[in-house]
Amino acid sequence: MKYCSVCATPVEHSVPAGDNLPRYHCPACGTIHYQNPRVITGTLPVLDGRILLCKRNIEPRWGYWTLPGGFMENGETVAEGAARETWEEARNAPELRQMLSVISLPQFDQVHIFYLADMVSPDFSTTEESSEVALFEPDAIPWDDIAFRTVLATLRHYVDHLGPDGRAPARLPLLDTTIIPRLRD
Amino acid sequence: MKYCSVCATPVEHSVPAGDNLPRYHCPACGTIHYQNPRVITGTLPVLDGRILLCKRNIEPRWGYWTLPGGFMENGETVAEGAARETWEEARNAPELRQMLSVISLPQFDQVHIFYLADMVSPDFSTTEESSEVALFEPDAIPWDDIAFRTVLATLRHYVDHLGPDGRAPARLPLLDTTIIPRLRD
Ligand SMILES: [Zn+2]
Ligand SMILES: [Zn+2]
Repeated sequence: MKYCSVCATPVEHSVPAGDNLPRYHCPACGTIHYQNPRVITGTLPVLDGRILLCKRNIEPRWGYWTLPGGFMENGETVAEGAARETWEEARNAPELRQMLSVISLPQFDQVHIFYLADMVSPDFSTTEESSEVALFEPDAIPWDDIAFRTVLATLRHYVDHLGPDGRAPARLPLLDTTIIPRLRD
Repeated sequence: MKYCSVCATPVEHSVPAGDNLPRYHCPACGTIHYQNPRVITGTLPVLDGRILLCKRNIEPRWGYWTLPGGFMENGETVAEGAARETWEEARNAPELRQMLSVISLPQFDQVHIFYLADMVSPDFSTTEESSEVALFEPDAIPWDDIAFRTVLATLRHYVDHLGPDGRAPARLPLLDTTIIPRLRD
């Protein structure tokens, strides 16, 4: 941020009076330009025990598998965003069963939230964002080719809670955790 | 938003190529200025079955009671933000026990997240933001003077799950819901 979005004056970056963190703020009109974490919202869609994954047709992590998800938009709920992203990336409109994970990524200023979702229709398809969309048995998840660590953690949490019959319990505990990048990231 | 924060050119507001929602974007440098919901994070602190509430010394809702909470900041986790706000508003550093509520407010472009928290110290005090800080037995909560509907819903969810002995179970279900303003709001 270089210029005030209200009046085009060059902004300053310092701790405003009465605050305790540095902010971009405008010396002309006084606007403080707060910057806050963004929410990524998505689903883990399940059909007859199989999990829907999308092969990314976009960067970052092109060619890796992911759960459908993306940035939450103004004017929608977390659940609406998760359903919208599932439609945009996989052309499926699942029923959201429960919130499954809330994962903070403080070094990326993001919070990732995933819902466990029941695929009420078996239909899905590739999209501009997904070069392949496919159902995977839990023991066939491509663990080495998952795009993001939040997706990996959410899938692992789900699979770890499956019963001996391979089915999920009526209600899974919420995975509430933090992911810090490894040094090599 | 009137001007590009990167190059100070007046922004346009329309659907960018390849997008499906109107955005502020810059005709000169091409930057798309996404605007996304913000996360409010806070706690429901408990000491010996009593709940810590803060009387707001700031607008909006000056003079009404609230749970400690505020905007999540870049570089922190949801939990860290909740703990920080509790310190800033009530000078108590509780131990977070579990995520208790995730409430979307689509008409305010916000998501409110509250943690159930154990007060490991009985110390607390007023602050610039709180003219009074006090512990309330569940049957003495000032229900008619609660500042925000997300706080009301979170308190109600907690109290509804107390056992006959007035104590919370080891783990409460997550309240995952949406609040739409009433017409009179
Ligand atoms: Zn300005
Ligand atoms: Zn520009």
